[in-house]
This record gives sequence, structure tokens and C-alpha cells, in this order.
Amino acid sequence: MNSGDTAWVLVSAALVLLMTPGLAFFYGGMVRSRGVLNMLMMSLGSIGVVGVLWVLVGYSTAFGSDVGGVGLLGNPAEFFGLGSLLGEDQLSGTIPTLAFVGFQAMFAIITVALISGAIADRARFGPWLLFAALWAVVVYFPVAHWVFAFDTTDDAGNVTAVGGWIANRIAAIDFAGGTAVHINAGAAALALALVLGKRTGWPKDPGKPHNLPFVVLGAALLWFGWFGFNAGSALAANTTAAIVLVNTLVATSAAMLGWLLVERVRDGHATTLGAASGIVAGLVAITPACSSVTPLGAIAIGAITGAACALSVSLKFRFGYDDSLDVVGVHLVGGLLGTLLIGLFASSAAPAGVDGLFYGGGLDQLWRQAVGAVAVLVYSFVLSLVLALLVKAVVGFRAGAEDEVVGIDETEHAEAAYHFGDRGSTRRAPAGEAARELEDSRA
Amino acid sequence: MNSGDTAWVLVSAALVLLMTPGLAFFYGGMVRSRGVLNMLMMSLGSIGVVGVLWVLVGYSTAFGSDVGGVGLLGNPAEFFGLGSLLGEDQLSGTIPTLAFVGFQAMFAIITVALISGAIADRARFGPWLLFAALWAVVVYFPVAHWVFAFDTTDDAGNVTAVGGWIANRIAAIDFAGGTAVHINAGAAALALALVLGKRTGWPKDPGKPHNLPFVVLGAALLWFGWFGFNAGSALAANTTAAIVLVNTLVATSAAMLGWLLVERVRDGHATTLGAASGIVAGLVAITPACSSVTPLGAIAIGAITGAACALSVSLKFRFGYDDSLDVVGVHLVGGLLGTLLIGLFASSAAPAGVDGLFYGGGLDQLWRQAVGAVAVLVYSFVLSLVLALLVKAVVGFRAGAEDEVVGIDETEHAEAAYHFGDRGSTRRAPAGEAARELEDSRA
Amino acid sequence: MNSGDTAWVLVSAALVLLMTPGLAFFYGGMVRSRGVLNMLMMSLGSIGVVGVLWVLVGYSTAFGSDVGGVGLLGNPAEFFGLGSLLGEDQLSGTIPTLAFVGFQAMFAIITVALISGAIADRARFGPWLLFAALWAVVVYFPVAHWVFAFDTTDDAGNVTAVGGWIANRIAAIDFAGGTAVHINAGAAALALALVLGKRTGWPKDPGKPHNLPFVVLGAALLWFGWFGFNAGSALAANTTAAIVLVNTLVATSAAMLGWLLVERVRDGHATTLGAASGIVAGLVAITPACSSVTPLGAIAIGAITGAACALSVSLKFRFGYDDSLDVVGVHLVGGLLGTLLIGLFASSAAPAGVDGLFYGGGLDQLWRQAVGAVAVLVYSFVLSLVLALLVKAVVGFRAGAEDEVVGIDETEHAEAAYHFGDRGSTRRAPAGEAARELEDSRA
Repeated sequence: MNSGDTAWVLVSAALVLLMTPGLAFFYGGMVRSRGVLNMLMMSLGSIGVVGVLWVLVGYSTAFGSDVGGVGLLGNPAEFFGLGSLLGEDQLSGTIPTLAFVGFQAMFAIITVALISGAIADRARFGPWLLFAALWAVVVYFPVAHWVFAFDTTDDAGNVTAVGGWIANRIAAIDFAGGTAVHINAGAAALALALVLGKRTGWPKDPGKPHNLPFVVLGAALLWFGWFGFNAGSALAANTTAAIVLVNTLVATSAAMLGWLLVERVRDGHATTLGAASGIVAGLVAITPACSSVTPLGAIAIGAITGAACALSVSLKFRFGYDDSLDVVGVHLVGGLLGTLLIGLFASSAAPAGVDGLFYGGGLDQLWRQAVGAVAVLVYSFVLSLVLALLVKAVVGFRAGAEDEVVGIDETEHAEAAYHFGDRGSTRRAPAGEAARELEDSRA
Repeated sequence: MNSGDTAWVLVSAALVLLMTPGLAFFYGGMVRSRGVLNMLMMSLGSIGVVGVLWVLVGYSTAFGSDVGGVGLLGNPAEFFGLGSLLGEDQLSGTIPTLAFVGFQAMFAIITVALISGAIADRARFGPWLLFAALWAVVVYFPVAHWVFAFDTTDDAGNVTAVGGWIANRIAAIDFAGGTAVHINAGAAALALALVLGKRTGWPKDPGKPHNLPFVVLGAALLWFGWFGFNAGSALAANTTAAIVLVNTLVATSAAMLGWLLVERVRDGHATTLGAASGIVAGLVAITPACSSVTPLGAIAIGAITGAACALSVSLKFRFGYDDSLDVVGVHLVGGLLGTLLIGLFASSAAPAGVDGLFYGGGLDQLWRQAVGAVAVLVYSFVLSLVLALLVKAVVGFRAGAEDEVVGIDETEHAEAAYHFGDRGSTRRAPAGEAARELEDSRA
Repeated sequence: MNSGDTAWVLVSAALVLLMTPGLAFFYGGMVRSRGVLNMLMMSLGSIGVVGVLWVLVGYSTAFGSDVGGVGLLGNPAEFFGLGSLLGEDQLSGTIPTLAFVGFQAMFAIITVALISGAIADRARFGPWLLFAALWAVVVYFPVAHWVFAFDTTDDAGNVTAVGGWIANRIAAIDFAGGTAVHINAGAAALALALVLGKRTGWPKDPGKPHNLPFVVLGAALLWFGWFGFNAGSALAANTTAAIVLVNTLVATSAAMLGWLLVERVRDGHATTLGAASGIVAGLVAITPACSSVTPLGAIAIGAITGAACALSVSLKFRFGYDDSLDVVGVHLVGGLLGTLLIGLFASSAAPAGVDGLFYGGGLDQLWRQAVGAVAVLVYSFVLSLVLALLVKAVVGFRAGAEDEVVGIDETEHAEAAYHFGDRGSTRRAPAGEAARELEDSRA
């Protein structure tokens, strides 16, 4: 057991937990003020549901002994409740197994929360929790096994325990979750947007972000937490973690600039929404690649993805799906780009030790990346479609049309996010809006 | 000195410092918009006053040599200014003593800040600072000695330096502060609510939370920081810290779901305020228990406490005390439940190595927990009552009735939290509210 | 390589990155609601531009081999792209070189962002990015070399590689950036305020802070991150880091109280803006001094600086420069005080091992501090003036007078920060402000 590695993974777990509220504010600031609470609640609910499920069956499914040795699924019952992993002798590499369990729990949580951005303003809360639970069990936990469960080998290099098929048989590089997290969530988001359908009036009246500082706050907390997400995935406080941290900084910086440049050239203005979105796009893209490229490669991947995502968020208008907060345009597109560009920009100077096409490695790594990306995309999209249709059929998923008019915060949660009404009335009789607000609060 | 343990405790100290502003937003979002600044200021002021006091007498009182060997008090003058603790040879276990000093400082700070939620909208700021200082010295510092100062023993197991009576003579388990922090603050909150009395109009017109996203932000920062609070209390980056981190995740997840379920069944809606409150209730309950239960035990404690606190926040209406933001209902009730449920759910599989009633350990641990809980509750309530009455008698504590109408931000701090007035008037002449606002700002 | 030290520096890097969004909210909350986005964007843009530049030439200029051995400049081309620093054998002390690179990157970023507070509401975004890039290259990177690049010595103490002149020839103490960060940014802020000129109507109509809770949020994130900034500068998880952390807590606590006391005595009210500003002033002052004073010395420096900065923020009205958000009054004055007071309060009991005037060390350290402070002040002010005039001449820097009326968020970014308009209209026809807002959003 190495205490420095353990300290780093524990901190990283806390950082990744913070990403989910960060996401909640990134999403919540973008919706109308009468839908922000529902948006926050879908993220909080994901923590509740997935947190508990992880202890029951999630960790086992993702990291338990492979069922049948084909790399598809861990034994879901193996570590039920985690009671058998509490001893001081339970290690994962150089850290206590429970530190790894806690760190990975946060990944499951945020992946589920990411999906919710596609269905802003129109999903009922209970059915969302049900979908979140089903999706975690049927989609995330197995895919985490495919991508994050590495074979165990003995000193002679012989495999003693089989891990997931993408990580080991295909040897696709996905350091921190370009496929398992972002392509996975992005494909599910597309499926959900299709099943739930468009908001009333869309695309004519999508509303404006009600609180752009919240969007920035969310992006900032995401970036901060993402250092744990990416550099924590080294599972040690070492050179790899340090390189990953620098790549996570510079790819994201470049992506922000790339997005803003596209806006400036196309629209004449660089926007705050664009800066925040560019940050997230860059973070998504460097997630799988952060251990396999140099800082210059990271800048290239960031700049390309930032610009490309700035262009792809308008795809939804062309194809007519209401992916409300651009989970597809940012996480699916960004995840695909980050995963595939490894095939081009990977450098053996980086910790992963693989050369991509531009560094003389040919096309070998690129097809591995493509197989991993497509497999997760297809699996997630199809299963998400099935699960969403199931939820829709059994309990109903979408709020009523009148709920959208009233506002989903009011109809689902019986709350309004803000009561600023008495603000201006401190020294005089309240009037106008303030008076009505006050009447409300006294009702 | 172990650098990994030190890194973890340093990070944890920073995380716990962040909890106090987190609490400020959790509380501040719940009050009316004309009282949010006063709410934030009571938390910030606690950092200022208690931070300085800790260096002067606090650390000594809590962790200095026991006066008289009876476990009630450390020598308050022993480490005045901390100058004698700066050498490289000054260690607490495997970390520099100053790391322990800094970590524990943050506990004193947030415990004081917690109390302020009971007296929203009606406490004058100066008297609050005075109360905070007195309460820290007379209540928190000694109680921290009772609960957190462990006996020092030599290799043969003989006690070489006596610590606090609850930790050592009673051997109540309180890993991170169920008694010293939450019961302590909750009992003081009840005393203050009684001394200051009800807000004008309460309970008819309590107002609505003016900014629920801030409540969520606060709960999120609390949760994030609480990983340092609980897992940092291991004072090492080890297996115990890892188990504590996982328990802190899942108990809180379960508590959120428990609170939301009660709301759904009772009121028909699961609210954002409920989710945020359930998070805090779960964090409170797992605080003493996080090292003594398995993850399944943590889920049980979380779910029970979340549901129970959702029911207990209405006690104030039954008994008629205006505990404005439910410090009693969440921290006192949650702290009591967490402390007592150890007696039932403790499992020797967890690091504390004790079996509770449900694991075959009988009632032994339960009575120890009860003694610790009741002792702190009674001491804190009585002393808090005395100190609050003292402050009230000498300088006055409560703001005037007219101040409540005008708003305490205006009367105590000469400020208003928000000036959104010119928001909508960017391209046309300002009108209505916006015009009045603008006039104000030009006055 | 020490994993504990590495963990601590990695975490610290993440903490310091978070400070820049923290600063964005500290600044953004203070401006009018129609200028908050531009304020946020100047900070975000600093991350983008400086993050990329650091990888290209910044690290080399600051920490590359000294050009000519005179301590003025590292070789800017030495580590272009950082590719040569990725090996497992690349260490800086006990941590991977890339961890040090990442940590120092965050310092460059926030120093640039700090400047932007002086030119709120009137700087065009593109020219700001250009200035940020030029200033980083011409001012920050060299000054970081002066202050942060220490000589390398062999076992016999002979210098094997020359570092910066202030750190080594003058031996001024600046543990974490009183000169390189705060005096540097403060002097640049003054230059920019002079070049861009006053806002229309200033000082008659400066507006009120539009969102004081955001100011508090920003101050809280700054404080939290500052533990990484200061204690992370130990570059190890050791006794020095622990002492620095405690000093960073108590100096800041005392500074907050000092600022509030001045307000209370002078104005009759202690304000939230004052508490937040006092926090930042205290953090600035303890930054250079945190390793060279005892906790009591830290309290003294904090209290003095808090009170002094509370008085100096009105200098701008006397001298007639529109330093909008008091970068001069807080960062320049606070940085100077913190740097100079080391000469008085330094104690050899602290890690730096130097005695100042009050501890019997005479005036030796004081003049060293003064030389370092003045050198950075003059260099930064003159070069910043030149660069700002250059940007002004070539592309224009200031937004038009009409832009200030409309609001710079609208004219520079085509956005408005908030759309609360549909908030109150959930169950009735929208009216007044809300209706107009709704029309807008449908336009």
C-alpha cells in the first residue's frame, strides 16, 4: 500500500463526485428559470440511485470475475455490499480496494447524470430515476467492464484473470472514459431525445439560458473535478498522472479558444456559452487521450474538437431531434473525436507508449479505437432506446404539454427556483412584480 | 513523517474549510433575499473569529495536556500562538503537528457556523460574533477535548497522557464529530432559537427559499468537503480512509432517497429542498459512524436518518420554536441518530472493530453512545442558553422588529444582495422596477 | 520520486486552477449585471491563452537555463512543447517535472486574470486576449524567473545552474508570489486603468455590485484554492506545507476582521463586500510571508493588511484613476505590505529561518524585500503601460461609450447573463417586466 497513491485517488474520488453538481449547474444554467430545479434534481437523483446500486451490484458487474471469460460482464453477485473488501489486505495495485471502488463509483454516477441534458424541461422525475437505475445496471456497469477491467497477469505475463474485451482483446486506448463515459452517455442521450420527442414549440422557441454565470460555474467545477477524473485514473501519484494533468489543462485551453474562434468568425461574437461549452468539449476529447499524447498533441486534439463541436451542436436542427443541452454535439461528438484522434496523435513519448499515424505508427491503433468507439455507441444507443421505450410504456416518461407551459419545476417538484420579489422593496411599499411575488409568498 | 498521510490531511483541511462557505450558501439560499447576506456573514464571521481563537487558546484547550487528569479540559495556555509546534520534529502520529492543528481548526469553525441557521433574519452581527467567540471557548474547545483527544499510551499499553473522558473512559465511538460537532451545534441552535424568539409573523409567513440553486450549491460543496471531514479524520491515507469515503458516499445517497420518498408519499412531490436537506442529514448521520459500519450498514443508517429527519423538521411547528433553517431537525436529530445507530449497526468487519446489537455485540456499545450523546447535548444546551442570555443582557442580540420588515441585510450591513434592475433595460429606456433600481443606484 | 509530495502538488495544481474561476466570480459579482459575462470571460480567456502559451514558451522562459547567467530570463526555446520532459526520470526535487510544470502554469494564468479587475465594463474582449498573451510573455514569464527560479547547487554548495536574480542574488523572500503575482498584477492593473481611462460617469455612478453572494462565492473558492497556492509552493507534503496552511488560515481570518473593524468604526456597518475583500487582502499579504512567520506573526500581518487595504481602496477616488474592482488597493497594496512586513515579522522559528527586525534580525531582510518589491513594481508598470498603449494603438482596446450604456455583455458577447423573466409567470399570464422578457426570448 502506497499512502501517496492512496491520498491522490481519495482526493480524485472527491473531485469526481463534485463534477456531478458541477454538471447540474452547467446544465441548470442553460435552461429556463422554471426548469432549473428539475435539471438539478436529475443530477442529484443520479448520485442517489447509482451510489446505492454501485455498492449492491455495480462494482461487481464492472470489476468482478469475468463471466465465461469472454470479457462481457463481471459476476454481479460477487461483491454484493462490498463487505468482503474491507480488510487491510484488500489492495488494488498500490491502493486499498475501497479507494478504487469509491473512485469508480463517481464515474458511474456522472455518466448517468450526463444523459439528462438531452431531455431538459420535459422528463418526469420518478421515471427518470427508474431509467437511471435500469441504464446503470444494463448499460454502464457492463460497458465499464469492457473498457476499464484489465486482465490480471502473473509475473510471466500469463493472464490469470480475464478482463473486458475492449481493454484487452481490442486494446483500444481509453484512459479515463472517452468510450465508457462520453460516447456511452452521448448515445443514450440521442436515444432519449428521440423517445421523449421535442419540447413544445421547438425549435422555434428554445428559450435562452436563464443564468449564464451558473453555466460558467458548472464548467469551472467540471474542469476542477476533471483533474481527478483524468489524472486520478493513473491510480497513482506518478509521472503519468502529472502528464495527464498538464494535458487536461492545455487541451481544454485550446478547445475553448477553438470554439470561440469559430463563433467569432461565424457569428461575429465570442460568447460565454461558447467558452463554457468549449471547455467541456476539450475535457471530453482529452479524456481518452490524456495518457497517450504529448502536450502539443493535446493542444491539437483540443483545438480540433473545440472547433468541431462548435459546428456540430447545430446538427440537431438539421436532423430534427431536440437534444436540449447538446449532449450529442458535445459528449458524443467530442468523445468520438477524442477516441479516434488517438489513432493519429498518439506518441510513444507519452506514458501509453503507442505511436499513432502521425508519429509513424500506421493505422493499427486507429482501427482499434474505431472498434471500441463503435461498439459502445451501438450497444448504448440500442439498449437505451429499449429501456426508454420500456419506461415510457410502463410508467410514462414525459411530462404533459401543459406542464411545459406552467414549468416543470412547479409541476414535478412544487417549487420555484427563485423568489427575488422582496428584493427591491426594503424601504418602501412593494409594488408591481415585487408585490405579486410577496402575495404569492404569503398565500 | 509520512508524506502521503500528510498530503491527505492537508487536502482534507482545505476541504473542510470549504464546507463553511458551502454551509453559508446552503443556509443563505433558504432565507429571503433581503436576509441572505446576513446569513453568509454569520458563517464568514465564524471563520474569522474561531480561526484566530484556535491559534490562541483553542488548540491548547482541545488537545493540550489534560488539566487534573479527569478528561474535561486541556491546558488552555499550553500552546498559545503555536510557536512551540513549528519544528520538523513535531509530529502527531505520522503527520506534522501543524497539519493536525490546521485540520482540527476547520472543525471548530464549521461547528460554530452551523448554529447560525437557527436564528436567520433576526440576529445582529456584532453580538453574533461575540456569541461565536464565547461559545467556541466555553463549549466547543472543551467538548472537542472530551471527544477527540485520545489517551497517549506507551508500548506496553499504559496511559502516558490522559485524553478526553468520552473518547477514553466511556469509549463512545464518534469518528468525525456526531457528538462534538452536530449534537453540539444542534443543541446550541435550539438554545439560541429559544432565547432570540420567533421571527415576526412566524409560523404564518416564513417566506420561501429565495434561491434554491444556492441551496443545492451549498449542499454540493458540503458533500465534497465532507469527504475531507470524515475520511480525513483517519489522519492517514489508508484503508480506513477509503472505507470511510465509500460510506460517506452511500449513506448520503440513501439519505437523499429516504427524504425524497417521505416527501413523495406525504406531499406528492419530491422537492429540491428535500434532496439538499436529505444530503446534509445523511452526511450528519454517517459522520460518527463512518468507520464502524459496512457499506450496507451505511445505507441503512442513511435511509433511516433521511426519512426520520424529513419527518422531524416539522417538530418546530408542534413545539413552537423558530429554528429557522432546521438545525435541530437535521443536525441534532441526525447527529443523535447517527451516534445511537452505531450501537445497532456497528460491525467488527469495519475499521473500528466493534459489533453492535444487530451484529451480536449486545447493548454494550449502545449505552456508551447514549452517554456520549446525552452528555454533549445537555452541556451544550445549558451553556449555550447561559451564553446567549448573557449576550442578550449585555449588548442585546436580536434585531428590532422594524429591521425584519426592512430586511436585516439593509439594517445590519447596509447592503442588498442583488441588483438585477438594469438587466432588462439594455436597449430601451428603463421602466418600472428597473427604473427605480437605477434611481437607487444613482442616489 | 515521492508519491506523497507528488499527490500534494497535483492537488495543489487543481486547487490553483480553481482560483481563476473563483476570481471570475469575485470580480463578476461586483460589476453591474450587464457586465458580468465580460468579467467572467476575461478570466476564462486568460486560462485559454496563458495555458497554451505556458506549454509553448512560458515554462522555458521562467524555468529554462538562464540566458547569460545574469538571472533575467530562461531560454524561451529550451522546452518548447514540453516533449523532452515526459520521461519517468524527469524530476524536480521529489516530484515529476510535469507536476511542477502544471502547478506553475496555474500561477501564470491567475496572475494575468487578476489584472482584468481594473478595467471592468469597458475592455473589448479580443484586445484583452492580445494583451493577456503579450503581458504573459513579456512580463510574467521573465518575472517568474526572477522570483521563482532558484539556483541549482551541487553537494558542495557550488552553483551549477543560475536562477533568477531576485530569488538568489537579492535573496528576497517571496514564498508563493507576493511580488511575482500580486505586485506584478497590481502594477499592471494600474497601468491599464490609466490607459483605458475612466468609465463614463465615474466616479459619480459606479453602480452597485449586482450579486454579492457571487462575490462571497468567489472569495470562498479563492481561499480554498489558495491553500494549494501557498502550501503547495512547499512542493512537498511536509512540515513547511503544514505551517503555511495554518498561516494562510489565520492571516486571512485576521484580515477579514481587520477590514470589518475599519468599516464598522468608519461607516457604522460591517459589509459583506468588506468581508470578501478582507479575505482576499489577507490571502495576498500572507502569500509571500507564509513560510517565514509564526502563526502570531501571520495574525499580525493579516490584521494590518486587512485594515490598511480597507483604507487604501479609496485612493483611486483621491488620485482619480478608475481601478474598477480595486486591484491596486487590494493586490498592489496587499502585495507590498505582505512583502515588506516579512522584514519586520520574519522569525527564524518558521521554515524560512530568517529573523526580521522585530525578532532581532535588524534591517537586512527588509531592504532585500524592498528591492524585490520595487523592481517588480517598476518593471511591471512600465512594460504594462507600453503593451497597453501598443494594443490601444494597433487594434483599439476600449469599448465605445455607447457600449457602456447598452452593456458590454450585449455588445461584446451578444448575451445577457440572466433571463429570470418567466420566473413569476408560471400560473398566470405574464405581465410587466416578465412579459417584455418573454417577448424578447421569443423574438
